[in-house]
This record gives sequence, C-alpha cells and structure tokens, in this order.
Amino acid sequence: MTEAIAIVGGDAAGMSAASFIARSGKDAKVTVFERSGVNSYAACGLPYHVSRDIHDPSTLLVREPSYFTSMGIDLRLCHEVVDLDTTAHAVTVLNRLSSTSYTHQYDKLLLAMGASAIVPPVAGGDAANVFSIRHYDDSIALVQYIEQHKPSRCTVIGASYLGLEMTEALRAHGLELTLAEGADHVLPAMDSDMTEIVHTELVDQGTEIKLGEPVLDLEEGEDGLVCAVRTASARWECDLVVLGLGARPNIELARKGGVDIDLTGAIGTTDTMMTNVDGVWAAGDCVSSTHRVTGATVWIPLGPAANKQGRVAGSSMIGGSARFGGVVGTSLVKVFDLHVGRTGVTETEARRLGMRVASTTITADDIAPYYPGSSATTVKIVADATTSRLLGAQIVGRSGVPGRTNVIATALQAGMTVGDLADLDLGYAPPFAPVWDPLLVAANRLGSMTRNGAP
Amino acid sequence: MTEAIAIVGGDAAGMSAASFIARSGKDAKVTVFERSGVNSYAACGLPYHVSRDIHDPSTLLVREPSYFTSMGIDLRLCHEVVDLDTTAHAVTVLNRLSSTSYTHQYDKLLLAMGASAIVPPVAGGDAANVFSIRHYDDSIALVQYIEQHKPSRCTVIGASYLGLEMTEALRAHGLELTLAEGADHVLPAMDSDMTEIVHTELVDQGTEIKLGEPVLDLEEGEDGLVCAVRTASARWECDLVVLGLGARPNIELARKGGVDIDLTGAIGTTDTMMTNVDGVWAAGDCVSSTHRVTGATVWIPLGPAANKQGRVAGSSMIGGSARFGGVVGTSLVKVFDLHVGRTGVTETEARRLGMRVASTTITADDIAPYYPGSSATTVKIVADATTSRLLGAQIVGRSGVPGRTNVIATALQAGMTVGDLADLDLGYAPPFAPVWDPLLVAANRLGSMTRNGAP
Repeated sequence: MTEAIAIVGGDAAGMSAASFIARSGKDAKVTVFERSGVNSYAACGLPYHVSRDIHDPSTLLVREPSYFTSMGIDLRLCHEVVDLDTTAHAVTVLNRLSSTSYTHQYDKLLLAMGASAIVPPVAGGDAANVFSIRHYDDSIALVQYIEQHKPSRCTVIGASYLGLEMTEALRAHGLELTLAEGADHVLPAMDSDMTEIVHTELVDQGTEIKLGEPVLDLEEGEDGLVCAVRTASARWECDLVVLGLGARPNIELARKGGVDIDLTGAIGTTDTMMTNVDGVWAAGDCVSSTHRVTGATVWIPLGPAANKQGRVAGSSMIGGSARFGGVVGTSLVKVFDLHVGRTGVTETEARRLGMRVASTTITADDIAPYYPGSSATTVKIVADATTSRLLGAQIVGRSGVPGRTNVIATALQAGMTVGDLADLDLGYAPPFAPVWDPLLVAANRLGSMTRNGAP
Repeated sequence: MTEAIAIVGGDAAGMSAASFIARSGKDAKVTVFERSGVNSYAACGLPYHVSRDIHDPSTLLVREPSYFTSMGIDLRLCHEVVDLDTTAHAVTVLNRLSSTSYTHQYDKLLLAMGASAIVPPVAGGDAANVFSIRHYDDSIALVQYIEQHKPSRCTVIGASYLGLEMTEALRAHGLELTLAEGADHVLPAMDSDMTEIVHTELVDQGTEIKLGEPVLDLEEGEDGLVCAVRTASARWECDLVVLGLGARPNIELARKGGVDIDLTGAIGTTDTMMTNVDGVWAAGDCVSSTHRVTGATVWIPLGPAANKQGRVAGSSMIGGSARFGGVVGTSLVKVFDLHVGRTGVTETEARRLGMRVASTTITADDIAPYYPGSSATTVKIVADATTSRLLGAQIVGRSGVPGRTNVIATALQAGMTVGDLADLDLGYAPPFAPVWDPLLVAANRLGSMTRNGAP
C-alpha cells in the first residue's frame, strides 16, 4: 500500500526528508506544503545579498521546485498548513493563491515549520522601515527599500551573528550604522572577553555601538515610519531599522496537534526525530536537540543540523535506522575582516551549569610569522577543571578560524581532554599554520596550568 | 648535584628540549652542540625565501642565540659532535671555527641531529649548480647563484612536497621549469588519482613534467656545471638543478654510540624518547614514531613532531612524565594556487598493509556556492571496509584544505568511524563552508556505500 507522507515546510529539513524518501524507492507518496512561494532557500546567505556580494538573489534558491517534482514529490508552494488533527491523521491546508482551504489525509507527518524572527514587542515594530532578515523575500524587500528611499542612518537591533552580518552588509551601502544590544557585550552568545576584538573591529569599521539597554521604543514620525530609537537612557535618530534579535521556533501547529513542546520552547523529539504523537515526526529549526557536551536539551537552530535531521526523519519515516547524534553548538560568523568561531560551551555557560571550569586564552600567529599576511589569532579553550575534558572553544582571527573551530568540534564529539588536544598531529606548512598551531599553544598552556606546574 | 645534559643538534627538537629543561628550574647544566652557524631555523620556510615571499632570510631564524643563552643554556654553534662513547658518557666535539677537538662529559645525552637531504648517487650531484634545500645556508646560496648566474632552465628532481614548493618558488624567478619524478605521478606520497589535479595545476603554471623514470645522470659541461639531465629514455638541457628527493635521518653518531637504529633507518625510542642506551634520549627528524592509525613504526620527519618530541625528551630527562603520542601522518603543501593536505594512510598504503579498504572521492563546493570566490574541493576518504574506522583522507582545493585535513587528523586520533564523521557538527557560514561540508558529503557517500544501500 502506498503510504501518504505529508511534510509541513519546504526548506532544509522538509526537503531533505522528502528527497531522502523519494530516492529510497519506497512506495510512498510525498506531499510537501510550503506556505511561502519558495522552497529550499539559503537563509544564511541573505545578508550577502543585502551587501551585494551576491547580486542575483535567485542564486540563494538552492534547488528549483522542478528538481523535487521530477523525483515524484508533490511540492505545493503557497500552501499553508493551518490546522492539525493527529487523531484523524489530517491537516487543514490554506491555498494562499486561491484563498481556499482543504483537508489532506496522511499516514505519516513531518513537522518542519522552521522558526520566525523575533520582533520586539514595542510600538513601531511593524513600521514599513523595520526589517527582519529571515525569509527569502526579506532581503529583497530591504534592498528595494534602500534603493528607493535612500536611507542614511540605520539602527541594527541585536548584536547576534545575524545582527553583525547585517551591520557589515549595510555598511557596504554607505549607511551610518548604530548597533544596539541589550546585553553588555556584542555577540552575547560568546564570553565577553572574547568579544572585545569584535567590538573594536565594528568600531574601526565605523559602527556606533550602544550596549546594556534594551530598545524600549521605536518612535514613529508623521509618515508612520520609525524615525528614532529609544532606550532607558538614550534616544537616537534613524531612518531604517533592521532586527537581529534571533528567532523563535514555529510550534503553533504542533500545539494544535498535541505534540509536546519541551522546556526550550521547541518540539521535543527522539534521536530518530519522532515526537510523542504516533505517526508524527519533526525536524529542523522547530525542534530541540541534545547537546553532546553537556547532555542538556538545547535549541540551537542552524542549517547543518536541520539538513541532517531532515535526512534522519526521512530515513526513520520509511523504517530506516539513521539517528541524529545531537549538536556541539558550532557556529561561525564573519564580521568585516574578522572571523569568529565557537563550539561547545562558553566559560559563562559552563559556570551557569555549575561546572568546575579551567580556561585559558592565548594569542598566537595564525600562519608562520615570517610568511606574508600572517596575523594574530586568539583562542580561548574551556575545560572541566576536574577531568580536563574539553568543554568548548572560541576563536577570533583573520584566517584559519573555521578549520580550528571544526577541529575543536571534532575533539568535543570524541570527548577529548586537553592533553589529547595537545597531542594532535595537525598540519604544518608556512602558508597555512605555524609549527605550533594556536590550538596546541592553547592546549599546552591550559595543560600546564591544570597539571599545577608538574613538568 | 648539577646534572650535565648534552644535546647534539640545535634545531627544533634540541632547542625545545633545552628550553624545557632550562625553564623547569631543575639543577642542570645544558650544553647544546650545533654543527652549523645557526640554531632554530624554520626549514619549511626556505622555499618562500627562494620565491622572495620572504625578503630577509634572517626572519627564518626563529630564535636568536641570546634567547637561549639568557636562559642559562650553553649554546655552542659551529661545534660538531664527531664521536660518542656511551660507556664513558663522553662526546668528542670538533670546533669548526678553530678546527680543534675536545671531549665533553655528560650525565644525560639527547641526540637531535635531524636529517640530511638525499643527493642522488650519480655523477654531477656535487656540481656547483646543484642545490639541496635543507639547511639555512642552502636557500641563501641558491638565491645568490640565481642572481649572479642568471640561469634560465631549471630541473627540479623529485616531485615531493619540497620539490613542488621549489618548483613554485623558481617559477617566481621566471625560470623554465622541468620537474622529474621517478614515480608514475607527482606527490608519490599520495594516491595517484588525487594528484591529477596537482599535475594539471603544475602544467597550467608552466611546468614541464617528466614521470616514471629516475634520473640516471647529471651531465657536466666543460665548466664543471651540470648542463643536462638524463633518464633512461630522455635527455634535456638545464643550467640549474634543485633536489627534492627527500631526506635521510642523521644516525652516524647514534651508531657509534651503540644506539639502536630500527627498520625505518631512524633511531628507535620509547614514548618518552629514550633509546636503548642508558642515559641517551633522541628526538626530532632522526627518530622514528608510532603511527596512531596503523600502529606501525614510521619515519615521517616533520616540524610539529620534532618540537613535541623535544619537549617530551626535555621533560623525561629531568624526571617528568610527558609522553609523545605518535603521529597520524598529517601534512600540507601549497602548489601554486592549490592547497593539498593528507592525513592518516592513503588507499595505496592501506592496501599495501593488507587492509580491507573502502574509499570514496567527492568534489564539492569549498564554501557556499553562491558566495564570491567559491571553488571546488576534492576529498578522498579511506576507511576500513570491515569496521568502518577512518584510515585517512586526502584533500585538494583552493581554500579550507588545512582545516578539513586537521578535522580528519583529529577524527583519526579519536578512532572515529565514517558514521562518526558524518555526525560531526561542523561550522556553517556562507563565507567559510557550505551547509553540507565537503567532509560530510564524503562521509555520507562512503557511509551509504558501506551500508550496502540500507537507508
């Protein structure tokens, strides 16, 4: 009997699952409902469309719909699933083009609704010159607005990864930039000591930074556009606002179907991406994950996990044995000429979890010091002070940051200690690394600290 | 009682040991004998002095002698240890400046004589226009020769890492380049299929390549200079020859002292760098190592291991507990605009060792395909077909190669399987990596092959 598989959401997780099932050759009819007009777009590329590094935004559309339909997938764009009855195994679908609704029966269902940008709950948040950057249309709308209205002073609210990428993108338009962050340092997901270099880079590149106070009000002018931003102690004018406040998982549909939401606020799943409801799987930015370092349940919505989870869900839905192993919290961001990476937990996070922490921060040459273009890179590694097990790292520099971050991500997955890290046989060639890689310099330093000076 | 510690060789391993002991605060008198006039030079940087990427070769001198003497180390440059009596605990030292010899007593001895470039046993090998690139003076002599004699046609013998680096360096001088390699492909330490891209890059950059025949003769003209190179089937003219035939460990002194040489031809040590002779340690390019992947004893003379071994020897000589964990055979080389990395064993090596091998080679985007500058990178991973344990990888591309090679080196040290590799939480950001990192693409491919198609 042909199984009816319904997938809600046609982006990374949903389309990965759909493709996996279609390629498997199993007797299944896969229907994907996507509320927007595009599937499979590279959300992380949107800032680079705004910056004009990418001129044609359609290059961000990873796969044409025809790629999927030719595999036999019934991909329905502009179709929003508005209700879910898990007892009746049925979804209610709104065709947004015809404004008509219908009921669709499924045998198995995948929830892959993703996440939505957080809009601050203040007046002015929905003004026409306030932009989120989450969906494919968002960056197109922002670029059009800039070209038509020629704003000159932009405020970016939120010094998250996205906030910093948007700051860089908007500077490329010659805009005056103010970056407002409620926390006491930029990149609040990192330890404050490691963000000082990033702060300096932002200032050096012409960004004004306001820290430590949330935005209380977006003041609207007579034209209904935001004309100023207020915090408790400051007010400044602007004619464009971009939000970089992060996102929230889209879970309304899950709630309607009785699917459990966990303490992270996202859908909880097993490692085969099954939910608590029989016949319902979930994957992507709307689900939580297990953090391999702490064992905690976390919500870290990133593309690589969404893609992997989609494949695992697809496998599991047709009886396969794939499992999603969790995350170690790896992320990378480019901030003008600085490259920033983190993986595992920060010192702040580890202390908050009650761990006994040992950490060290070193600055070393990123490549051989005598080779043209060598520059300083800063590495902070965090370990369990009792067992010496690595807990995380943060790296800031101008080259080599992604690779070094990924080495630590690998070491974390393997449960390596600081001593294991110091033993690594990392590559050496003058254009690529110094003979003592900065990671080894950091490991040797932390090792000698935690060994209490024994040789 | 103050211990007399003698160290033969004042480069990476020897000076790392000397520094470690001097910094420890132990009551020891450290004397280092270095036969050349310089200590601690960056041998791997020499090609970049020849290429003029580094204008002042003295930047390759990592540490001034005064750095060490101010630590209390008695560093004796131009002092060659010519004999060793391990029963009498004495070395015979030739002062090459005064041409006088003397005997030096030690309590503990470290052998760190390094390795020497292989010169082919053919006529003409010692002509004035034939250059090795191993010691600090070598690149200075070569650059002087080029500037004074303005050669136009150079032959590089040996398509090793060094041979390729020298090819690139000499092309920067506008020389016509011929690269002669006895094996049937360039970079004989890699699998032939992975070297095709490198071969093409060399040809595209104007190098003529002669494969499959060893050089039999360096033909000398009336002026005593080499004027042509002969193999069994070919002869071509040249007015400069550079050797890239690799190196041999310097073990003559060890033999004189009754120190065991193992089957690799290098000095065998324990993981605390002790030799078979009481009171004698050895470290650096003159010793063998354990390969962590195969368990075999190997001779892979590279700077990172030499530095680590020097520290371990220094620790062990003063009663410390440091151990050298072995190598996984990681190396990197830049060949014009190509970056090449390998770690672990190649498919060829694994099959030679009788392993059941599964491997896959994929080509994928090195960064997000829509981001400016994205390029193809090729990844070959090799695994044990029975256990799925990773055995090695080879990577060729234009960015991201060092980091990806190091991720595999870390995975190898951890004993990861192909499935573990596919699970890695690697960083994603469009300027640095695609959402499916090429390593994950390769792991997924090899995983689906070794699972025999099960989902």
